[in-house]
Amino acid sequence: MALADKRGQVGNGVCHSLRVTRVEGFRFSTDVTVRFAETDAQGVAHNANYLVWFEVARVAYLAEYAGGYSAIREQGFESFVLESHVRYVQPARFDDRLRIHTRVGEVRGARFRFDYEITRDGEVIASGSTSHACVDAKTLRPTRIPQNLADAIARAEASS
Amino acid sequence: MALADKRGQVGNGVCHSLRVTRVEGFRFSTDVTVRFAETDAQGVAHNANYLVWFEVARVAYLAEYAGGYSAIREQGFESFVLESHVRYVQPARFDDRLRIHTRVGEVRGARFRFDYEITRDGEVIASGSTSHACVDAKTLRPTRIPQNLADAIARAEASS
Amino acid sequence: MALADKRGQVGNGVCHSLRVTRVEGFRFSTDVTVRFAETDAQGVAHNANYLVWFEVARVAYLAEYAGGYSAIREQGFESFVLESHVRYVQPARFDDRLRIHTRVGEVRGARFRFDYEITRDGEVIASGSTSHACVDAKTLRPTRIPQNLADAIARAEASS
Amino acid sequence: MALADKRGQVGNGVCHSLRVTRVEGFRFSTDVTVRFAETDAQGVAHNANYLVWFEVARVAYLAEYAGGYSAIREQGFESFVLESHVRYVQPARFDDRLRIHTRVGEVRGARFRFDYEITRDGEVIASGSTSHACVDAKTLRPTRIPQNLADAIARAEASS
Repeated sequence: MALADKRGQVGNGVCHSLRVTRVEGFRFSTDVTVRFAETDAQGVAHNANYLVWFEVARVAYLAEYAGGYSAIREQGFESFVLESHVRYVQPARFDDRLRIHTRVGEVRGARFRFDYEITRDGEVIASGSTSHACVDAKTLRPTRIPQNLADAIARAEASS
Repeated sequence: MALADKRGQVGNGVCHSLRVTRVEGFRFSTDVTVRFAETDAQGVAHNANYLVWFEVARVAYLAEYAGGYSAIREQGFESFVLESHVRYVQPARFDDRLRIHTRVGEVRGARFRFDYEITRDGEVIASGSTSHACVDAKTLRPTRIPQNLADAIARAEASS
Repeated sequence: MALADKRGQVGNGVCHSLRVTRVEGFRFSTDVTVRFAETDAQGVAHNANYLVWFEVARVAYLAEYAGGYSAIREQGFESFVLESHVRYVQPARFDDRLRIHTRVGEVRGARFRFDYEITRDGEVIASGSTSHACVDAKTLRPTRIPQNLADAIARAEASS
Repeated sequence: MALADKRGQVGNGVCHSLRVTRVEGFRFSTDVTVRFAETDAQGVAHNANYLVWFEVARVAYLAEYAGGYSAIREQGFESFVLESHVRYVQPARFDDRLRIHTRVGEVRGARFRFDYEITRDGEVIASGSTSHACVDAKTLRPTRIPQNLADAIARAEASS
């Protein structure tokens, strides 16, 4: 449809200058279908929902490789979102089936970053990242990511 | 409260390296109160809501300086979000009164960028930006921002 | 606009049979403006948001008459939503200024019910109710509504 | 867990008087997993999300039996929500896998009603209904539900 095409051009034109590196080798993905409640009066998925989808994918990633978010909490850790970034390339519409490709792009001390690419029928329609801090659930002090989680992530990403 | 303090430290530590320039001179702000529906099971406002608040502030800014978003659409223009970025410094909680400081940071051809700082009792708890493209509502082609809007923004920001 | 008129007729036709009593004498109201994020691809406010607005109004009511929701929690009480009901008469649109009229319709033991009417420019566009249970925050057992809260509500509603 | 049990008792107690008939014979269901973004500071899924899940289930139902919501729109019909009702029996929590049982409870002229039951591990944790009007997409006048859709629903529900 015209809107997507045109809008894609706008997006590409604008975002070249950001030099967002396209990360090859996403090994994990999870699918979401755009809900009607997630659309807005422009007829496309509202921009805030991408952060919800990123979170859905993050939770699925941790379930796949690290025993799940609950397991992490049970070990006494919490995490907070420090930063989020979304680049919108093509609009998503009601009932679109989207694939959220997800990887841990960096782990350093108490911090880690997830990278995401959203594709529809194999075409990238958005990308982004979220940065997080791991804290001790009792003291709420930043704390090194638990070794078993770091190892699980390293194994997961090494094989991709 | 401890969580806020600790979390703030984490946030600051992590984000120094980003060299996000603190923009002085926000001339416009609008207030939101954190809704209970906007909190999550960590007891804080969910990270996706910040993009909704940015939008609320953007709409209020355009109403103040540019005759409102509706006026822009009536002139035959639409805009799309190309990018969004949020930096979370301190968590926001239920019933917190937040002030969303808003300015247009850049206008260039068909593109413009809004910058935001969210304060609570005068303290910055988050910041961010959204980038947009202006398009002709009929052809959906990127089009230079209408001159009267560009002028209104220039006047608004010049005086700050 | 045609949509509103037609839709209103549909709504009225259907809902007559429900004999929803129009409650006169709402003494309290709070205003919300429809956010763009709250619209959907039909161009109107999505039906789930009405429950969020009801909650915003409930919180404001408690702040006005009962020292606020936080005060209630500090006294050791929690409340849960048992039921919600919304009747949509006319669609709400982006940037519409809505008035949420709110009253406590019934208090009985551990249970209480809020009633709502949403008006736009004085015309009712939706109505509804939510039923709640008061529980002891420690034991989570249903518990009689604290007397000072019940008294505050009685005073508030008596004068309306 | 205690909260669920207690809350369930409260819910049942309150709702007996409503004589909500438990509809046996739901033939269709669709699953959702509670997103973290859907939780609130009480640690449970926020009450407004149930209407979003109902809609997700409704869309899936129409895809299964009636060629999808898009097909209906392509035939020149739109539908509006006239009423919604939710009864919350037990709280849902982050990552809970919920099954939304869905059926069309009534079709009459331009109006139809969906009924829902939400189960977790076979136990009903919520139920509800939504009433809708079918309108001609051009005139927006209430219009009899298209015969092929009515037939498809009749076949679907007859076999259950």
